[in-house]
Order: sequence, then structure tokens, then C-alpha cells
Amino acid sequence: MTAKPIIGMTVGDPAGIGPEIILKSVLESENDFIPLLIGQKQVFQFYNDLYGLGLSFYSVSDCPQVNEAEGLAVYEILPHTKLHLSPGIPHIDGARVAMEAVRTGTELACESHISALVTAPIYKKGINQGGYNFNGHTDFLAHITGTEKYAMMLVGGGINVVLVTIHIPFTDIIANLSVNKIFETIQITHSSLKRFGIKNPRIAVCALNPHAGEQGIMGDEEQTIIQPAVELARNADITITGIFPADTIFWDAVHDKCDAVIAMYHDQGLIPVKVLAFDTGVNVTLGLPIIRTSPDHGTAFNIAGKNCASCASFKQALRVALKLIREGKND
Amino acid sequence: MTAKPIIGMTVGDPAGIGPEIILKSVLESENDFIPLLIGQKQVFQFYNDLYGLGLSFYSVSDCPQVNEAEGLAVYEILPHTKLHLSPGIPHIDGARVAMEAVRTGTELACESHISALVTAPIYKKGINQGGYNFNGHTDFLAHITGTEKYAMMLVGGGINVVLVTIHIPFTDIIANLSVNKIFETIQITHSSLKRFGIKNPRIAVCALNPHAGEQGIMGDEEQTIIQPAVELARNADITITGIFPADTIFWDAVHDKCDAVIAMYHDQGLIPVKVLAFDTGVNVTLGLPIIRTSPDHGTAFNIAGKNCASCASFKQALRVALKLIREGKND
Repeated sequence: MTAKPIIGMTVGDPAGIGPEIILKSVLESENDFIPLLIGQKQVFQFYNDLYGLGLSFYSVSDCPQVNEAEGLAVYEILPHTKLHLSPGIPHIDGARVAMEAVRTGTELACESHISALVTAPIYKKGINQGGYNFNGHTDFLAHITGTEKYAMMLVGGGINVVLVTIHIPFTDIIANLSVNKIFETIQITHSSLKRFGIKNPRIAVCALNPHAGEQGIMGDEEQTIIQPAVELARNADITITGIFPADTIFWDAVHDKCDAVIAMYHDQGLIPVKVLAFDTGVNVTLGLPIIRTSPDHGTAFNIAGKNCASCASFKQALRVALKLIREGKND
Repeated sequence: MTAKPIIGMTVGDPAGIGPEIILKSVLESENDFIPLLIGQKQVFQFYNDLYGLGLSFYSVSDCPQVNEAEGLAVYEILPHTKLHLSPGIPHIDGARVAMEAVRTGTELACESHISALVTAPIYKKGINQGGYNFNGHTDFLAHITGTEKYAMMLVGGGINVVLVTIHIPFTDIIANLSVNKIFETIQITHSSLKRFGIKNPRIAVCALNPHAGEQGIMGDEEQTIIQPAVELARNADITITGIFPADTIFWDAVHDKCDAVIAMYHDQGLIPVKVLAFDTGVNVTLGLPIIRTSPDHGTAFNIAGKNCASCASFKQALRVALKLIREGKND
């Protein structure tokens, strides 16, 4: 038994910066958690040797074997697949290792062998070529865990932002907003924050139109779509405020006037997070039965193997995961 | 002759916080400019006495009379109109004084009697009732100066943001974007920044869609509307970069990678400015033949007469005006 939680880290695409940022993050960690690398020992060994990091690894196939004294534990994924690693050049076998690592990591988290899962970036085109019909981590995680309702929360600069719509064209935003979808996002945010240890989460809701529409003068979606969702949430005893003009609420959020802001679309939520915390933003998937965080960047094939990737966002993803583990325990 | 520039300040609605923030800004100023208050001496005297500020005023009707030793010069507007001042309760006569102050201030600036005009907030409904068919300061200033092409620049948190569309419903944004309008906004930004002393302004352009559309996967306005405008600008020898995802460009702007960012809509530009500089954001009207700045807030009738208004934004509007005066002279 150990007081330190085990955090699983999936390798991501082996040809991307995933392995590098995992190893560097572990090296720079405060030793307040036990890392379990999920991928292939050969991959981590490759980058360790390439950069001369001086780490040692041992393979595990079951979590209770994790023993810090032996080095870094690597949970072997597709052990009979020998990868021909070439940094920056993705390969279908690597995509499969990346995805099966996520599957295994999720199962380990669901079975409480690990306390949280932090995922390194995968290559979307690669996973599709590898036979995985998913857009990315989030819907794959939802599929594995049988989760129907989930949401993406961005954490950075002292604020938490949850998106109602995400990767859709600007022109489709209004058609993709509905009373139900906004209410569901509020509900998921509420229950997730409670699970993360906030007893009475304070949720603030963004307007869609400038100046929140000024009572319908500049758009009426506040009245027709957003306000009914706010009322549903209020009737469900959720502590909710708004509708706030989107250019003023994030300042309040920075100054702890709320625990999370519900943003209607990608840029509305991402602009404030990235202007406050450009390279330390973290994604947290809400609604899953496990704690899952990830850095807010991609595989960066262009700099893979060059020993120059910043692990700031991955390290922060580990810090956020650790915070959620600890605060959840206080619930 | 004096080396210090004269900055004109229009009173704004006399029942709002305008007179209060003007007087407090002057009291807290660094004495590196000569203030010319434009409104009515009785209004400034009223708030001075109400708050015990200890300032003295004298009336002028011509700028060369400004003499700091005599106290604060007030350029009298509608001197035969006796206002019955009641803080927080706007009156049609006050709206007229506010608007005629803007007209006079603009003329004084056009005739170079003052080096810049800083305007306190007016009450839009009041000016309409007073017979002025304008939406606010900007179109009134454009009307007075015969300016056809103008734009609003937000200054705060170390960044300058110019808006292509402003106060329109979200659903109308795309219909209000055109190649020509974006190009014009870039042109106005370019020429204004040059006038303000930046020899080769570096202008960055925001995308409309998330991730700048990812080559058309999430919207194509980048290719159909924005890119042609960028090309027109490039062909006009304007130093221009982009199209950048809106959630990444403002960080670059904060870190001096450009002199101004062109934002497609209100919240896209206002969110980063207000999250970085909530109560010190400043509006600068580009395209006018004069330097005009204003604070980024309204009349705040609810706190007028209570001696609790923050003059932070007005003070910053004065600082920005002074900076533009000085840097423009170095051109």
C-alpha cells in the first residue's frame, strides 16, 4: 500500500512528442504520484536513449507489480508488435499502440488500478487508417466506458471553461445550441465539479450575442435558448448565474466569482484560457467514470525526436489530475 | 507656447459618472498635459463641491486662453442652458450639452486647438430623445468630421484589437463580413498606426472558425472571405500575417508579435482585451482626422453622485491619447 496515487500515462502516437513529454514530465515531477507508463517499453527506451535521460524501465502487465524502486513501470501494449520508430513519421502500427494504450488505461482506471489517466496526443488521421472510427480521444473514451453524456472542460489561468459546442463551423453554432444541450452541459459540469470535491459548484453561463443581446436588441438566443436552460438548472438546485456578456464573465472567473464558465462555442471558451495560459492549458473530460486529463496540443510531428518539445502542458495535465484525485477524496 | 499638449475632455451625460471620472482623473494625472474640460462649469463645480475635491474652474471660450495657473479651464457649452442636475437621472438638456460638447471638442481638435479628444460616456437613449439620430459617439464623430471609413480599436493588456463587425447579433456576423470590409478595416488600421508613429505596422488577422477552419474542414470563410482580403492588403504593401486561430493569436499579440489584431466580431476581440485589462480598456476611433479615445464603459447612472466611480479606464484613455500624441509627433 502507498499513499501516493498511481497515474497512468498513455504514450500517444510513438512518432509524435508524446513519449518525450511523458519522460520529461516524470523527470520534472515532484515525486508525489507513481507514474505508470502505458505503451511499449521499447518506445520509451528509444527516446530515453536518444536524449540521454538516464531513466530505466521495466515491463508490467498488472498494476500491483508497480514498484518505484525498480524504475519506471511500463504497461506493455501489443507486446508482439515491433515498431520501427522514426520520429515525426507516423505509422499505422504506432497508431494502434496509441489507441490500445488508451483502451487499456481506461480499463485500468475503471478498475481503480490507477487513480487517473493522462493521455499524450494521438494522430487523428492515423487512428482512422488504423481502423478506429473515432474523432479523437474523447469519443473513444466515451465509447469504452459506455458514457453518453460528456463534455470538455478547459483548465488554465485560474479558470475552468466547459464548452457546449466544440469543433464545428462558426455558421453551424446556433443550430447546434439547444435548451437541452446547454442544460446537459450545465448538469455534467455540476456533477463533475461535485465529484471533484466542490460541494456546491458555482456555475456561470455565457451569452451568445454581444452585450448578452441587450434585452433582445442584438439577438434573442439569450431569451429563447440559454435562459430556459438556466431556469432548468435553477429548478434542479444548481447554483447558477448569468447570462453574462462573454467579454466580462472571464474576468470574474479569474477572480473566483464562479467555479466554471459555460461557453457556447470553441473560441468563446478557448480565447480566454489560451490568452491566460497559452502553453499550460489542460483538457479535462467531464462525464466519464474516471479522471482523464490531457495537454492542450497535438502530436507536433514537426519537432518530434528533436529534444525541444515543451512538457509544460503535459506536466500541468498531471498536476490537474493529481488535484482532482486529492480533492475528490475530500468529498 | 507650452511643451505640454492640451487634451480636451467632453463632459458626457452630466447625470452620469462622466464629470466625476474626469475630475478624479485630472487630480490623479501626472501633470504632463493641460486639461481642457468641455461642458459646463456649473456641472463640474457641482460634482467638485459634492465630493469636496477642492478644484477651481474658470470659463473659456477660446483655447489660447487656457492658463493652468487660473485653475481648470472649462469650455462652456450651451451657456444659456441652466441644467437642474440630479445625479443618476438623465435629462434631455444634459444630453444636448453632452452632444454639443462632443461637437465643439471635435472642432477644437480639427483646428488643432487641442491635441486629442477624450470623451466621457453619453446616454444613447437620451441623445436620441434630444434629437440626435446617432448610435453613439463614433458615428457622430464621423458625421462631424465627414469621415466615411472608420473603425474601433480596443487597447488594453498590451494588445490592440480592431473590430470588423461590432454591435450586431451573432447570427448576422457572417453576412456582415465581406472581403471589402475586412480589407478596409486592415487599411484603416495600417494608416492609423502609421499616423500614430509606427513606421511599418505589423497587422495580424483572426480566423472566424475554430482552428482557422482546418483547411475548410470546419468552415470555409477563411478561404472565401478573409484570405482574399489578406491578399489585397499584401498587394498594398501592408505587413500582414495570418489567418490565425483566434484562440492563439492574442497570446502572440501580448508577446509583441504584432502591432494590432483584426478581429471579425465583438466578443472575439473584446474577450481577450477585457480578460487582460478589465477596467483599463480604452477605445480608440481609427480613421478620424483627430485623436479620440474613450473609456470602455457607460454612464453608470446607478452609481452617479455616489463618489464611488472608478476613473481607471478614463485615466487610461488619457494615457493612450497622450501616447498617440507623442508617438505621432515622432513620425
